[in-house]
Amino acid sequence: MIIVMKHHATADEIAGVVAHIESLGFQAHLSSGEERTIIGVIGDERPIEPEHFELLPGVERAVRILHPFKLASRDFHPDDSVVKINGVSVGTQQVIVMAGPCSVESREQLMETAAAVKEAGAHVLRGGAYKPRTSPYAFQGLGLKGLELLREARDELHLPVITEVMSPQDVTLVAQYADILQIGARNMQNFALLHAVGEIQKPVMLKRGLMATIEELLMAAEYILSHGNTRVMLCERGIRTFETATRNTFDINAIPVLKSLTHLPIIADPSHGTGKWELGTPSARAAVAAGADGLIVEVHGDPAHALSDGAQSLKPDKFAAMVAEARRVAQAVGRTI
Amino acid sequence: MIIVMKHHATADEIAGVVAHIESLGFQAHLSSGEERTIIGVIGDERPIEPEHFELLPGVERAVRILHPFKLASRDFHPDDSVVKINGVSVGTQQVIVMAGPCSVESREQLMETAAAVKEAGAHVLRGGAYKPRTSPYAFQGLGLKGLELLREARDELHLPVITEVMSPQDVTLVAQYADILQIGARNMQNFALLHAVGEIQKPVMLKRGLMATIEELLMAAEYILSHGNTRVMLCERGIRTFETATRNTFDINAIPVLKSLTHLPIIADPSHGTGKWELGTPSARAAVAAGADGLIVEVHGDPAHALSDGAQSLKPDKFAAMVAEARRVAQAVGRTI
Amino acid sequence: MIIVMKHHATADEIAGVVAHIESLGFQAHLSSGEERTIIGVIGDERPIEPEHFELLPGVERAVRILHPFKLASRDFHPDDSVVKINGVSVGTQQVIVMAGPCSVESREQLMETAAAVKEAGAHVLRGGAYKPRTSPYAFQGLGLKGLELLREARDELHLPVITEVMSPQDVTLVAQYADILQIGARNMQNFALLHAVGEIQKPVMLKRGLMATIEELLMAAEYILSHGNTRVMLCERGIRTFETATRNTFDINAIPVLKSLTHLPIIADPSHGTGKWELGTPSARAAVAAGADGLIVEVHGDPAHALSDGAQSLKPDKFAAMVAEARRVAQAVGRTI
Amino acid sequence: MIIVMKHHATADEIAGVVAHIESLGFQAHLSSGEERTIIGVIGDERPIEPEHFELLPGVERAVRILHPFKLASRDFHPDDSVVKINGVSVGTQQVIVMAGPCSVESREQLMETAAAVKEAGAHVLRGGAYKPRTSPYAFQGLGLKGLELLREARDELHLPVITEVMSPQDVTLVAQYADILQIGARNMQNFALLHAVGEIQKPVMLKRGLMATIEELLMAAEYILSHGNTRVMLCERGIRTFETATRNTFDINAIPVLKSLTHLPIIADPSHGTGKWELGTPSARAAVAAGADGLIVEVHGDPAHALSDGAQSLKPDKFAAMVAEARRVAQAVGRTI
Repeated sequence: MIIVMKHHATADEIAGVVAHIESLGFQAHLSSGEERTIIGVIGDERPIEPEHFELLPGVERAVRILHPFKLASRDFHPDDSVVKINGVSVGTQQVIVMAGPCSVESREQLMETAAAVKEAGAHVLRGGAYKPRTSPYAFQGLGLKGLELLREARDELHLPVITEVMSPQDVTLVAQYADILQIGARNMQNFALLHAVGEIQKPVMLKRGLMATIEELLMAAEYILSHGNTRVMLCERGIRTFETATRNTFDINAIPVLKSLTHLPIIADPSHGTGKWELGTPSARAAVAAGADGLIVEVHGDPAHALSDGAQSLKPDKFAAMVAEARRVAQAVGRTI
Repeated sequence: MIIVMKHHATADEIAGVVAHIESLGFQAHLSSGEERTIIGVIGDERPIEPEHFELLPGVERAVRILHPFKLASRDFHPDDSVVKINGVSVGTQQVIVMAGPCSVESREQLMETAAAVKEAGAHVLRGGAYKPRTSPYAFQGLGLKGLELLREARDELHLPVITEVMSPQDVTLVAQYADILQIGARNMQNFALLHAVGEIQKPVMLKRGLMATIEELLMAAEYILSHGNTRVMLCERGIRTFETATRNTFDINAIPVLKSLTHLPIIADPSHGTGKWELGTPSARAAVAAGADGLIVEVHGDPAHALSDGAQSLKPDKFAAMVAEARRVAQAVGRTI
Repeated sequence: MIIVMKHHATADEIAGVVAHIESLGFQAHLSSGEERTIIGVIGDERPIEPEHFELLPGVERAVRILHPFKLASRDFHPDDSVVKINGVSVGTQQVIVMAGPCSVESREQLMETAAAVKEAGAHVLRGGAYKPRTSPYAFQGLGLKGLELLREARDELHLPVITEVMSPQDVTLVAQYADILQIGARNMQNFALLHAVGEIQKPVMLKRGLMATIEELLMAAEYILSHGNTRVMLCERGIRTFETATRNTFDINAIPVLKSLTHLPIIADPSHGTGKWELGTPSARAAVAAGADGLIVEVHGDPAHALSDGAQSLKPDKFAAMVAEARRVAQAVGRTI
Repeated sequence: MIIVMKHHATADEIAGVVAHIESLGFQAHLSSGEERTIIGVIGDERPIEPEHFELLPGVERAVRILHPFKLASRDFHPDDSVVKINGVSVGTQQVIVMAGPCSVESREQLMETAAAVKEAGAHVLRGGAYKPRTSPYAFQGLGLKGLELLREARDELHLPVITEVMSPQDVTLVAQYADILQIGARNMQNFALLHAVGEIQKPVMLKRGLMATIEELLMAAEYILSHGNTRVMLCERGIRTFETATRNTFDINAIPVLKSLTHLPIIADPSHGTGKWELGTPSARAAVAAGADGLIVEVHGDPAHALSDGAQSLKPDKFAAMVAEARRVAQAVGRTI
């Protein structure tokens, strides 16, 4: 932490800050510039917030030096983590594709879609049983029935399953049915839920919140990691900006930035990242070109009658074409799908 | 819902959209402009999403006409709702002040702060027992012990208490200790939690998410209302924007906009809205001038040693001055504090 | 400037950064923390950008310590500046009101509106002769004819006039007719224009860009000040965010933040800050409560037929009511209008 | 335009809106839903703004149906435009690369960089002579001397030149030296400048503003097109969001969205889109994967001593590697470089 004193800070104010730093068990290091005195805080600053110092008399501002995350950081874990899920490895040179319907709606819908995405090259089946919906009047998912159908598809097609968990009470149950637990964007800072999935031993895919910085995403991962679960994947799924032409702004920069800061695998979600199926394929190609370790894609046999997210769901034939295009791009950047 | 067809949409495509509308139980109403055909959807469109129609062949876009919320809307409830809490009424001409520490840290800290805020004119005591923290390494609150201390302060000072609940499992417990349950900004779309507080009979204060639109805030309120709990207050606490000079951008416009759209009382949180205690007082004055029904303010006897949010906490004497200033502004706009 | 080295930066990399700092005429000051070495740059860092250092081998990031503006800063000019314009002083305890039509449309429209705003208490007449419009097909202003009409209204009613200048070529001409030159939000970083108005001796009101940080606004003011024109006022007029319920998000926090950073007077524009006339009055009250030194408001006798910005224009009677309400709030915070 | 009446709008209010529509020369078309009456405005709505109607009594809101741009739209120009510049064609299956230093600093610097980028495969030389800088104390470019050097490099290496013009007065001069005029992001809505470049016959590359919507970018292009200059290219260069890990958020979605809305070629600027040279290559690959027609890249022989934008400039060898990687991606999507 660096503490910048005000232009006319007095010697007493500087001494007060130094004493405060030392009272917290840190060392202080002074540096007098032409217009400002700067005080360095020596020690592991992660547990404290810069704002803490900003209310001491004479302080102009405080700036964090270390990233506040540790377990998620490449500093202490330079090599890529590989997350293994029933024979599928995420975080290697192979780009992993997860695909399936937004919501599980019926056995027929799920089985047909699951068979189609497997045929097209998907490695993991996605499908929602518990659905976070903006409106209380919208379809909220089949719940346990949805989990059972996912299990059935999983066993029949030998595809690992990823599905969302929305509440700490449901973690144990969902973990019995799914291979990967998904934390949705709106729950990225649901700390009770992060705590709960940190205590089980199942891979977790954590989606970036609409409003979350890259640092906050990594801090949310740190919650899970610090509770003992090391199999964490991150997912860039678009952020909210002023632009309304697309549902979200897919933050393509986040992929290489995350790859440089963390050892965890990075999945890209072009369906939510754009909100429109016809933009999904260009964005999927772009995500692979930018270095994503995986894709997660919404596929539906009849999007116009989907109970959720139809607008961003690909039909199976379009999905197969997307995989083929993404594969060519993967090869162009030295990877496979 | 209005569906705008593409420039060169064919008669078949138009007929397809009409058939789709009718298959959902709505009526279709065509209007042919010079460059576009427009199709109106007649019926209660709230359960459907515009995106649903955007993937039909020939459709350019679909635009919602009705606000998607109903119980929260002034359309069906034109008069202001008044939320009554143990003798305090929120939503009248009197502006209500809720104040206290960010976190309950100890009996001594809480009792001193509670007495000071009561003395300064606060009507409700705030204090956090369960704390959502960005870092897993930061102080997470005293939990049950914190609830007990709040109860003690409440009973001793005859001040109703507001405190945050973070998880559906905790709702029943927290409701035994508190008079108002707070849903924090990061949980605004934690639908399992909204569902849970919708099923109890305790007033709820719902904070706007950092990146939630006004419409999404009202839809989150709709979750609570639609599960049977009618005593809901909304809280504007600043949104996330590109500006970094303040922790959040306090959306002052949201106050009159919400007052026009909904009958629910609107509380303003100048502490989070600015993130800096020295900005709290101007923002509190501004919130009252803009029409807020209440203020919620963080107060701490020794902010530099607060375990959370010290930077935005006022000392008791500064808080008393804030209340006095806000009172003068309230009188200038025909209200009291 | 503080330069943070990477976790495993080598001694050679550190030496390279020190040598680079010294080659630019600065002194380097090393501080070795537990996980990072930090290098302070001693000297007036304003002309250099932090990014400059970030590409040296071993550097993680560089952080500016000093605000990059100097003439606009309170550091070197602690007292409030008062801008004097033909008998009107901006930046004193009196809140100044500027009002008039968005565009000058005709002699009759201007004269009627000007008389009405003067009657209601306005101190300065606003009116656009050159209009920046998003669409090339929209009304672009009366140009020179508009300036002549403004001059006529000014002389007849003894009201100083503020009007926008859009191009460096027009500065001399507009300065002959107007008392205050306005730089619009979309031109806040039109550096050629800032340079041009910096070289004349007329007061300038600089509007914050939709996308501009507070620091960038102050840097734009620095352009004008550094070219010799010291009579600069700043205007908060709303920023662009994700919220679409209002045209802009009026950044009420910016008012106290600017007052703390700069000695220049701060004007608030509730018309653009909200985009809707019915929100203008609450926002005007809020701006005065937050400490604004002035208001600029759009007024039109027949908003539904205005050639621009009708939706955010107040009718004269509503404007008179706004001034009366703002006056009461001004008195509540110890000022007058 | 669709006008949505309020819930309890009266017959008189509806009649008033209809009369207003007809007074503007449009036809009105009524549709009564269950809760709202909707009025369609039949005719070319482009010159009017929705807000115009929102202040009529009884109106809740007005929604634009047509995009407000016409000449830039695919509606009336379905095929891709190809912009020809001295033997280089932009908008074909070949992806065009423009590269060179941010600023022209000296003959030696320019010639070496120009030769290197040509050698690496660039088709157009970029270089700034007039530089928009946030700080008045930063290097502002060599001006005319810079233009002369660019001309020299152009003639020697047979590379067309692109350079920025910042002021209407400079358009004629810059057009004598450059093959393509660049309008910078901060000038995207400098309407006087758009007007001026619309009246010359030189290709223009228009950069998207930091906080401009895709629609506003197309409206800015419409300014140029409507003044007679048809050779316009658009450039996505990153937008401003809440994320601070990168200088800008590169809006990858904008590329396919723009390709669907307009016939104009789309250039991507990964240097500004990321602000960090090490992110430039992944973003350049992504842009090509998403369908960009060209790239514009900052290259400098010694970035640490660059007078501007060093942090985002590639060294020549890294640039050559970027072109090679982008070429492989181009081939993967059926294009060449």
